[in-house]
Amino acid sequence: MDFRPDEMTRAFADEAAAFLDEHVLPAEPVLAQQLAAAPGEWGPRPIVRELQEIARERGLWNLFLPPGPHGRGGGLSNLRYAPVAEITGRSSRLAPAAMNCAAPDTGNMELLVHFGTPEQQERWLEPLLEARIRSAFCMTEPGTASSDASQIGTRVQRDGGEWVVNGRKWFATGAMNPECELLVVMGKTDPNGPRHRQQSMVLVPRGTPGVTVVRPLTVLGYDDRDHGGHAEIRFEDVRVPAANLLGEPGGGFAIAQARLGPGRIHHCMRALGMAERALDLVRGRANERIAFGGPLARRGVVREWAADARVQVEALRLLVLKTAWLMDTEGNRAAMKEIQGIKVAVPRAVQGILDRAIQLFGAAGLTGDHPLAEMFAAARALRLADGPDEVHAASLGKAELRLSSSTMEGAVQ
Amino acid sequence: MDFRPDEMTRAFADEAAAFLDEHVLPAEPVLAQQLAAAPGEWGPRPIVRELQEIARERGLWNLFLPPGPHGRGGGLSNLRYAPVAEITGRSSRLAPAAMNCAAPDTGNMELLVHFGTPEQQERWLEPLLEARIRSAFCMTEPGTASSDASQIGTRVQRDGGEWVVNGRKWFATGAMNPECELLVVMGKTDPNGPRHRQQSMVLVPRGTPGVTVVRPLTVLGYDDRDHGGHAEIRFEDVRVPAANLLGEPGGGFAIAQARLGPGRIHHCMRALGMAERALDLVRGRANERIAFGGPLARRGVVREWAADARVQVEALRLLVLKTAWLMDTEGNRAAMKEIQGIKVAVPRAVQGILDRAIQLFGAAGLTGDHPLAEMFAAARALRLADGPDEVHAASLGKAELRLSSSTMEGAVQ
Amino acid sequence: MDFRPDEMTRAFADEAAAFLDEHVLPAEPVLAQQLAAAPGEWGPRPIVRELQEIARERGLWNLFLPPGPHGRGGGLSNLRYAPVAEITGRSSRLAPAAMNCAAPDTGNMELLVHFGTPEQQERWLEPLLEARIRSAFCMTEPGTASSDASQIGTRVQRDGGEWVVNGRKWFATGAMNPECELLVVMGKTDPNGPRHRQQSMVLVPRGTPGVTVVRPLTVLGYDDRDHGGHAEIRFEDVRVPAANLLGEPGGGFAIAQARLGPGRIHHCMRALGMAERALDLVRGRANERIAFGGPLARRGVVREWAADARVQVEALRLLVLKTAWLMDTEGNRAAMKEIQGIKVAVPRAVQGILDRAIQLFGAAGLTGDHPLAEMFAAARALRLADGPDEVHAASLGKAELRLSSSTMEGAVQ
Amino acid sequence: MDFRPDEMTRAFADEAAAFLDEHVLPAEPVLAQQLAAAPGEWGPRPIVRELQEIARERGLWNLFLPPGPHGRGGGLSNLRYAPVAEITGRSSRLAPAAMNCAAPDTGNMELLVHFGTPEQQERWLEPLLEARIRSAFCMTEPGTASSDASQIGTRVQRDGGEWVVNGRKWFATGAMNPECELLVVMGKTDPNGPRHRQQSMVLVPRGTPGVTVVRPLTVLGYDDRDHGGHAEIRFEDVRVPAANLLGEPGGGFAIAQARLGPGRIHHCMRALGMAERALDLVRGRANERIAFGGPLARRGVVREWAADARVQVEALRLLVLKTAWLMDTEGNRAAMKEIQGIKVAVPRAVQGILDRAIQLFGAAGLTGDHPLAEMFAAARALRLADGPDEVHAASLGKAELRLSSSTMEGAVQ
Repeated sequence: MDFRPDEMTRAFADEAAAFLDEHVLPAEPVLAQQLAAAPGEWGPRPIVRELQEIARERGLWNLFLPPGPHGRGGGLSNLRYAPVAEITGRSSRLAPAAMNCAAPDTGNMELLVHFGTPEQQERWLEPLLEARIRSAFCMTEPGTASSDASQIGTRVQRDGGEWVVNGRKWFATGAMNPECELLVVMGKTDPNGPRHRQQSMVLVPRGTPGVTVVRPLTVLGYDDRDHGGHAEIRFEDVRVPAANLLGEPGGGFAIAQARLGPGRIHHCMRALGMAERALDLVRGRANERIAFGGPLARRGVVREWAADARVQVEALRLLVLKTAWLMDTEGNRAAMKEIQGIKVAVPRAVQGILDRAIQLFGAAGLTGDHPLAEMFAAARALRLADGPDEVHAASLGKAELRLSSSTMEGAVQ
Repeated sequence: MDFRPDEMTRAFADEAAAFLDEHVLPAEPVLAQQLAAAPGEWGPRPIVRELQEIARERGLWNLFLPPGPHGRGGGLSNLRYAPVAEITGRSSRLAPAAMNCAAPDTGNMELLVHFGTPEQQERWLEPLLEARIRSAFCMTEPGTASSDASQIGTRVQRDGGEWVVNGRKWFATGAMNPECELLVVMGKTDPNGPRHRQQSMVLVPRGTPGVTVVRPLTVLGYDDRDHGGHAEIRFEDVRVPAANLLGEPGGGFAIAQARLGPGRIHHCMRALGMAERALDLVRGRANERIAFGGPLARRGVVREWAADARVQVEALRLLVLKTAWLMDTEGNRAAMKEIQGIKVAVPRAVQGILDRAIQLFGAAGLTGDHPLAEMFAAARALRLADGPDEVHAASLGKAELRLSSSTMEGAVQ
Repeated sequence: MDFRPDEMTRAFADEAAAFLDEHVLPAEPVLAQQLAAAPGEWGPRPIVRELQEIARERGLWNLFLPPGPHGRGGGLSNLRYAPVAEITGRSSRLAPAAMNCAAPDTGNMELLVHFGTPEQQERWLEPLLEARIRSAFCMTEPGTASSDASQIGTRVQRDGGEWVVNGRKWFATGAMNPECELLVVMGKTDPNGPRHRQQSMVLVPRGTPGVTVVRPLTVLGYDDRDHGGHAEIRFEDVRVPAANLLGEPGGGFAIAQARLGPGRIHHCMRALGMAERALDLVRGRANERIAFGGPLARRGVVREWAADARVQVEALRLLVLKTAWLMDTEGNRAAMKEIQGIKVAVPRAVQGILDRAIQLFGAAGLTGDHPLAEMFAAARALRLADGPDEVHAASLGKAELRLSSSTMEGAVQ
Repeated sequence: MDFRPDEMTRAFADEAAAFLDEHVLPAEPVLAQQLAAAPGEWGPRPIVRELQEIARERGLWNLFLPPGPHGRGGGLSNLRYAPVAEITGRSSRLAPAAMNCAAPDTGNMELLVHFGTPEQQERWLEPLLEARIRSAFCMTEPGTASSDASQIGTRVQRDGGEWVVNGRKWFATGAMNPECELLVVMGKTDPNGPRHRQQSMVLVPRGTPGVTVVRPLTVLGYDDRDHGGHAEIRFEDVRVPAANLLGEPGGGFAIAQARLGPGRIHHCMRALGMAERALDLVRGRANERIAFGGPLARRGVVREWAADARVQVEALRLLVLKTAWLMDTEGNRAAMKEIQGIKVAVPRAVQGILDRAIQLFGAAGLTGDHPLAEMFAAARALRLADGPDEVHAASLGKAELRLSSSTMEGAVQ
């Protein structure tokens, strides 16, 4: 067992940290200005393009995509990517997009790498890897418990040489970005098949007739318009060629599962970055802000929670890293319990850390003057993204209570 | 000791509940439409005026103002008002405004009743009691710990027959409402006086030259534009007549304290209403939403937290009611520890209840489709309104640890 | 609604407080000495008898027994008894016994009052009311979930003019006290009857052949020998006359329920007294103990938790009082949800308060030098006494989620 | 970074686990019997000797002592020892003693290895390494905040060729074990010296005239008599030869600090083993115990907390392992923040896990029938051992809020 990151990990993390300090953090007020200047507009602002060019030059591009036989990406293993992803979480509105490592495109690119045909890859994967287009993932539906895949109502029916999609999706993040050209849609192709073989995944160009963006959704008051927002979308007799099926018919559930594992760990890595950013901000504030005769940093209550936050972040980071290592060495499936564990624990802890950081900043912490409120909303949303905490905790607890079970994978005992 | 509310309490609570069910709840989607129809506009929407007329007819008007020698208001004692205020919290964006019981106007009206001259009352109090105008309270300043009154930077200087105001305020709620005509401003008239005699309160008509609304602030992504938002305001050589001083010179701190007691208990009452609304919503959802083979209401985890929420609400409501009773019978000052206690405990508990309610609603809970997200943001903000929790907890804890101290006022032992 | 206790309540509470200060607290070290002097002995020490005589003279006797048509006791209503019970909790090892208000005798006396025949009352109730004998309650069984009454394994079979008891019970508190003469035993008389009519309650003189105390149990290391400990008891062909049935055949479950309501509220009242005692101790300690240059009372962390503890105690006390009032005015059954609520919330909160109080006392807090460790163990045990928290919370949550349900009884809305 | 334990780690962990399963767990009821058979006796029971012989044969002996230039012990590095120590925590009353890895002897042996003269080592260290004698550590004093070393009241004065010790110590664990021959005593040799140079450490044979065991202390009702209990000791003009000073005069504080680092991490390792034991017990119970129609393992609430416990244990174990690795690679001093972090977080989490495990076992969980209650008391005591949590958290928080600071040592960023 060795807790020292290897040279390559350090090199990428250092580069990412330098990029963050030199370019991304200074770009935050620029983004704010560009957003204020065109309040009605959806999609990324010019500063993102500028950052993307620099990131690409510095080799900080598509790092999320683990190397593999597919010959794409040239990215990092999960273990090496973790510190980089954490750094992007420190400026979560800008850095992931700047380095082409932002959800949901990352997950969609992974799907295309692993399940796409050469034609699908050429048409969608290449421009996504270049950040020339964006994509959205359409799984969640209004009115059903999305964590229960058997409840999906969207139909994908074969009609001659085409698939016909009918249904309604929401929380399609990024779909209102004008650059978004691809919708990855999950629907039922065989409603009477076995529970986990009823669903298929189909690639729908956003401009296809019958696709209607019904409305944008807000998340705790944020519309996230620079990321293309979160759309509710109606699919009415939307027709795509048979070749647009991703993977095999009935493979939708398995594909979705494959997508969610890495997605969840990426979310956790970035969430830890948010916590570190919050602690940086707190450190500054606690030393500078004077109340009742002394800086806040001298208060016992503030110290205690800083200690608490630090220990939580350190322990959870190690669990995320171990999960990444397990995924790299044993495969995503072998790391299922760990992924569930961090999915439940990390966003919850980070929300708590941000909550207290806001408290320390006073009312200012709730405004757009600091990134805390925005990160707080993001962390809160993570507890529901890819399924609510409770579903994962219940599944993990069930496994834990199985008589054969003992500890997680890879533990000494 | 008797826990049964008296007839008058029941009568007003029943009337308010009926008004809520018959008029306010059905008006919520109307407000949403009217907001969507004029997204750029600040201030109340037409539906509020409609509700105000009904509320007034039904005698649900200005109930927040306890009866007194002042001969105004004809409102209710704190103890009788509590259930009414709680009911308004169930629809916190509409009901308080509909019944002319919304902050910050309530607090400002109280100030004018208790400290205003007959001329000030005629000019400002009367139209406020009629809801013909609105007001804002300008105490908090950017860049200082507002809970430490000695740090206030705004200057209010005498120059001949006028007061000249210079400074910067923020979180002036309601100030961007076009109907807002009065700013109650706290500033230092005597920066070298004793710590709590340096400040005075002055009445500034919003249209006075030198008053500039710098920008609106957001609270967890919400701009609360229908309430006139939360403004940052600059005061540059703003001149008002000498007669616009509220109370006596140097009395600003004492006046602010007098204002905050009732304000805090009103916040707590309404917050409990938010919790009850959340529990209503949860009850519906948990019975209707099916996941993995059964309604959520059958899940142990859901039941446990419903139990937990119920007990918290019941216990804290009683503490709020007792605080109200103490204020009525012994005066606001005698209830100081109780007010601190509920100020710390209620918003924290309600935030937690809303957090779990959102979790039960899944991603939908974060959107504008349900009032949960908005109420969550409001409860979160309450933990900072009128001073952060920590300041109140520290003060209460200090008192609790005093060797002479034992329990709160009015306890048997 | 009126939060002021009436004169009678005050009078008894004042008397009890004076008795506590003048006699009970000074007796604590005496009890410790008497326990150390005869370590092998079970049962009360001489000091308890001395205190009982004083208590009786001062009218502090059997106050737990609400007045009723039964013409016994002459005690207080639940609402008036609450402050007295809380005071006894401040010295929970001595005061309840001193005032003949200690479990399980209180519950057993109530049973005899409500369900006993005149003969049973004469034989058992009179001497219990005089504290000439003690009793134990035998419901819980090793190896079964006692909160599920259908699982009771003890059999009570009719054989001619006798009942024959066979089975095994544990946590029979007080059974090793040599003064204990009565065992109230719950067993199945009709194992095939309807779920809640299978059980009956039978009165077994402790000396009956076939009754064997198997062993004493410890609770977190305490054997509570001065209270007669907690016994495991074997019943082998134990024969008692038919007249020893308490209430009607098949009425055991209903009788047990009737017993548990008041029992639970008494436990909660005393638990609040433990919390107040802890806060008293903390107040002394925090002002006297110097570390790193100042008294602990000046530390922010200590102040914050003192505030937190104070608010919890105040809010939960009000809920306990309201529950008592409901029991008095509407009956125990109408207060079922409230009883469940306090049963879950109070011991948990008090355990937390004691945990932090111990922390403040350092290692000394864990020893017998202060009553904190003992009270901590008692509060911990309360979370399991009369059924684990979880069972009550689940039941309360189920009720809360019922579509018809809203708030607890007696609430305004 | 590599999370796979090396071969040697696995080999020792496997051996320890086998020893635990084959010998230690079956010995638990034997110990209980031997304790019951001689209730008045202090010190280890015969079964411990039997286990020691087996452990020694199997090479499971003195593994706590990291290899070093001292040429003693032949133990394991901290990182390799961690899984072994965790396994001993699963049977914390027997396994550490069986493998000669029990506090306080481990810490005392470390002191003798690092600071002892050859003569001291020959006289004390050799027999301790052989488990022929036992030792106690006398630092904490009644009536002072022991975490503040400047408050130590015990005097160690030079008088000719001797040191004269006067003072009072408590929580001298093991001192009533008849095999205990050595007391390591900290006292002030230079009360006017610099704050951290006033103290010295002196070796006092327990039989020295003037040493009086005043009384045993209990910890949450446990006297831990088989470990020699926790003694209060009076030192009155206790004279030892000058050669009995450990290390240099004025070096007491530094020596104590050196002792506490490894001591704290050992405590944490064992505490994690307690948590794993609890989870094992829970797993069995939850599957076997039926209530209200199904096994507890099917309840959502039970599953949720099992998940929660699992994630806490996994994350904290990694933090403990990383701390061990840091101590091995960078030295104990470099790991100071990590040691503080685990010292605060691990016992708190483990106490919580044990608390809920007890709840699942019902009242049985509080008795001696399962090891839960005993482990709960041990975990609770750990939060005070070697200084209360709050002192460590405050120190860690202070460091975290330093402007220069960022993360813990060895983190990537």
